[in-house]
Amino acid sequence: MNNIISKTESAYEYPLLIKQLFLAPVEDRPEEQIIYRDETAISYRLWRERVHKLANALESVGVTHGSTVAMLDWDSHRYLECYYAVPMMGAVLHMINMRLSPEQLAYTIEHAEDDVIICHADFLPLLEAIKGRIAEGRKFIIIDENGVVTDSALKIEGEYEVMLAEASSHYDFPDFDENTRATTFYTTGTTGLPKGVYFSHRQMVLHTLVNTVSLSSPSVQGRMHRESVYMPMTPMFHVHAWGIPYIATYLGIKQVYPGKYEPAMLLKLLVTHKVTFSHCVPTILHLILKSPAAAQFDLSNWSVIIGGAALPKAMTLMALERGIDVFGGYGMSETAPVLSISHLSSAETELPPEEQAALRSRTGKPVGLTQLRIVDEEGKDVPRDDKTPGEIIVRSPYLTQGYLKDNVHSEKLWEGGWLHTNDVACINEQGSVRIVDRTKDVIKVGGEWLGSLEIEDVIARHEGVSEVAVIAFPDDQWGEVPMAIVVTAEGAEVSESEVKQTVKASVDSGVLPREAITLKVRFADAISKTSVGKTNKVALREQFLS
Amino acid sequence: MNNIISKTESAYEYPLLIKQLFLAPVEDRPEEQIIYRDETAISYRLWRERVHKLANALESVGVTHGSTVAMLDWDSHRYLECYYAVPMMGAVLHMINMRLSPEQLAYTIEHAEDDVIICHADFLPLLEAIKGRIAEGRKFIIIDENGVVTDSALKIEGEYEVMLAEASSHYDFPDFDENTRATTFYTTGTTGLPKGVYFSHRQMVLHTLVNTVSLSSPSVQGRMHRESVYMPMTPMFHVHAWGIPYIATYLGIKQVYPGKYEPAMLLKLLVTHKVTFSHCVPTILHLILKSPAAAQFDLSNWSVIIGGAALPKAMTLMALERGIDVFGGYGMSETAPVLSISHLSSAETELPPEEQAALRSRTGKPVGLTQLRIVDEEGKDVPRDDKTPGEIIVRSPYLTQGYLKDNVHSEKLWEGGWLHTNDVACINEQGSVRIVDRTKDVIKVGGEWLGSLEIEDVIARHEGVSEVAVIAFPDDQWGEVPMAIVVTAEGAEVSESEVKQTVKASVDSGVLPREAITLKVRFADAISKTSVGKTNKVALREQFLS
Repeated sequence: MNNIISKTESAYEYPLLIKQLFLAPVEDRPEEQIIYRDETAISYRLWRERVHKLANALESVGVTHGSTVAMLDWDSHRYLECYYAVPMMGAVLHMINMRLSPEQLAYTIEHAEDDVIICHADFLPLLEAIKGRIAEGRKFIIIDENGVVTDSALKIEGEYEVMLAEASSHYDFPDFDENTRATTFYTTGTTGLPKGVYFSHRQMVLHTLVNTVSLSSPSVQGRMHRESVYMPMTPMFHVHAWGIPYIATYLGIKQVYPGKYEPAMLLKLLVTHKVTFSHCVPTILHLILKSPAAAQFDLSNWSVIIGGAALPKAMTLMALERGIDVFGGYGMSETAPVLSISHLSSAETELPPEEQAALRSRTGKPVGLTQLRIVDEEGKDVPRDDKTPGEIIVRSPYLTQGYLKDNVHSEKLWEGGWLHTNDVACINEQGSVRIVDRTKDVIKVGGEWLGSLEIEDVIARHEGVSEVAVIAFPDDQWGEVPMAIVVTAEGAEVSESEVKQTVKASVDSGVLPREAITLKVRFADAISKTSVGKTNKVALREQFLS
Repeated sequence: MNNIISKTESAYEYPLLIKQLFLAPVEDRPEEQIIYRDETAISYRLWRERVHKLANALESVGVTHGSTVAMLDWDSHRYLECYYAVPMMGAVLHMINMRLSPEQLAYTIEHAEDDVIICHADFLPLLEAIKGRIAEGRKFIIIDENGVVTDSALKIEGEYEVMLAEASSHYDFPDFDENTRATTFYTTGTTGLPKGVYFSHRQMVLHTLVNTVSLSSPSVQGRMHRESVYMPMTPMFHVHAWGIPYIATYLGIKQVYPGKYEPAMLLKLLVTHKVTFSHCVPTILHLILKSPAAAQFDLSNWSVIIGGAALPKAMTLMALERGIDVFGGYGMSETAPVLSISHLSSAETELPPEEQAALRSRTGKPVGLTQLRIVDEEGKDVPRDDKTPGEIIVRSPYLTQGYLKDNVHSEKLWEGGWLHTNDVACINEQGSVRIVDRTKDVIKVGGEWLGSLEIEDVIARHEGVSEVAVIAFPDDQWGEVPMAIVVTAEGAEVSESEVKQTVKASVDSGVLPREAITLKVRFADAISKTSVGKTNKVALREQFLS
């Protein structure tokens, strides 16, 4: 007896679709505003119309259920329109990372099978540069803030605003299976090729519900609520800007999209619109705190959740001094992303800054429905002593169910039925997690992942190099930069600048992402190895970072 | 191309099970307390153990996937244990309404096919009285606060606490289909027989997520958050106590269960445990406000959501004077139940009491994911003028998909793919709903539904009665009481007390629920009829209530 509930013929079986998140706020708060830089302010009422118009415009260039529409824009109300219109049509939104190397860019466009690419004029040169490397037949829509279709080697179907102006303001968004793919983007991890992750409508709705609770249910600290003002400072291509635009829209609150991140503009928007909630990588917060303009503003009504890289205690203290409510969160591309948040209880917010900073900089407790375990190499849970490290493995209702068209890595990711984060952490008695060795091999430069193996590949090709290992080196500006430990070949002479030149050439040719130029170089007599002959990065870190 | 996401073989497809709601809070807040009257205080840690023990105890009397376990208790930590253990085993929790007539009680037990009935000693006489009317083979577990198995005509398997003490504290709750039935209970509507509604695991998880957001996301007014203290004052058999025990448990907050509702005990618990959030029908709030003890306590830190019947403005004003944050909500048995809540913005909480009371007494705005329409008889949406009435019809992810084993009423409920509430309301420009004619035929006495047709049936059988219609009459204590409009047969003489005696006899024999004894009687020369010859209750209400 399986005892599945029976459904009377006429009953509406409610699928969890992004469409359903879209309905209420635009009904309830039609006059609340969505802002784009100092250029545009539109009401939810108008924004809803624009979402419908966008769907009609996309349909006019052939987009249908199962199509893939790629987006390449700064953070904008238009990007938010794509967050809804594209999946609500039953198409897939591919969020392109404009920081990829040209090679990676071409690879992801081909791999995701983009049918239509919406591209801000600023990024058109990126696409033009790879014209020969992507298949013919793709359609391009350009976003030009002056409504102009630029001359281009690519065949441009039209300009975004012009197409919207011509489109009907009603599109009948259909129901379909909640397991339909809604979004796709690529993560550049430890291996050479970017890997595609993907999320269904159901997953995005659940991520939104679970994490609206995460952010709204604290008593006081770190809250986002129905009267908050929201401004993202994590790019929208980056794991759905942590899914928070969906939360803000679900709550129907005022949203401010800052376009390209420029400290002066960010500060201006923050102050003008009385922003109360943002999120970013440490690098961006650092930029703002260090900005000369920042000193003159009152930032004491601002909560900022920090993710993408560990939140350094020193930065937490600096932010607290300015009255900023800063705290850490954790997640990854594979997890939609939010897995844990480091919220403080009312009592904890009364602690001295040093103690608060220690709490705020933690990885935090798992969010609702998330099962987070920290396990040793035998898969056994580590003790809750805040010092025994283990790998974080997770289950939640919104984890990518594999990598796109990549069975080998998919199975590795999900080995044993738990998603493997490759992050090393410990856990305290209260169940709060602290990542101690954030990733095994990957370096996060300005919050973006940079694969050490890729850089090693390039440097190792230099004839004077016998052996090389790349590890992460802490950096005030970037969070981390890659550091190459180089063993020269017998009798050869290699200088630091030669190694850097080699890497720069690969950046210029599009083999490596541009972040690789932040490389530091050290020379050594040998590279530590593990018992099975692999590079021992733990030992290298001890040797070169302590 | 349906474009369903592909799942790598090892990936964990996360089903939405009540089990998943259970995991985090008991991990995160193991020392937070669950209180039962002034008798018991247990930690979440211990409570979790008890849930596991209960599952083992139930398994020992034969409960398995697909079984039905009925519960008949006052509001208690034990009831909360059943909310989790029973569905988590894959069994169905049938929440018995102890206020049903013996006839209805026997009918629902038979209809739900209860395998095991857990019964508080106080209610054992109710079951003993219907022994002959329910099939043999049912098993009974008794809750005796002294741990004693009473002598009974029924075969008692054991006492709840004794069985738990003997059970193992680990039960391996399995995964299964999220559409498995989790709960069932009966609604006594306009027709004679109670109708069973049912909810799946998925529906209960979604009700919890959506309404944790509803209650935690307001800026200030009417909040339940991670540091709230919760005490239900709506019986747990009544639509999952509006689903709020699941929300409180999900948040991992302190919970206080008051057992049988006695104003002195409720007040004592409120004050002792600094309760911040409750919910009840107007009658209960009225009892508390009128209680002599209430005057001496500070209730200004208490939010109370009122449902089950309209929140009278006068009561709102009285509560506001005491500093109580009172506000209305709306839902029904068929809807799990929460459909709308009347929250105020920060600005609105600054309005004068009269204006606030008008807002707080509204039905409110739909909660997340709920599509609520108000339609005229042709199914067209009424204008947003706050005066044109229409029927409320809804869609949400947690509506009963029919009535148990009742195709005719199921199809009527879901006519046209929308759930028909039978409630008549209007809607204002801001999208806030106000029920004007709460139900068509049903009377709510102390928040419980009383079918007018049943009472009409009884009275009409009196030989001196030619015709009768029963409508709801407003009452300070009960919210509403039934009022019979009686037309005497030609030449006959019937007194008010004879009509009342007739009804009382039917209550005594178990044909009518006991609330029916609150009946008022009026005599008339004729009963207004509609054009198709049906009793025109709208006209009767105008005639007798204005």
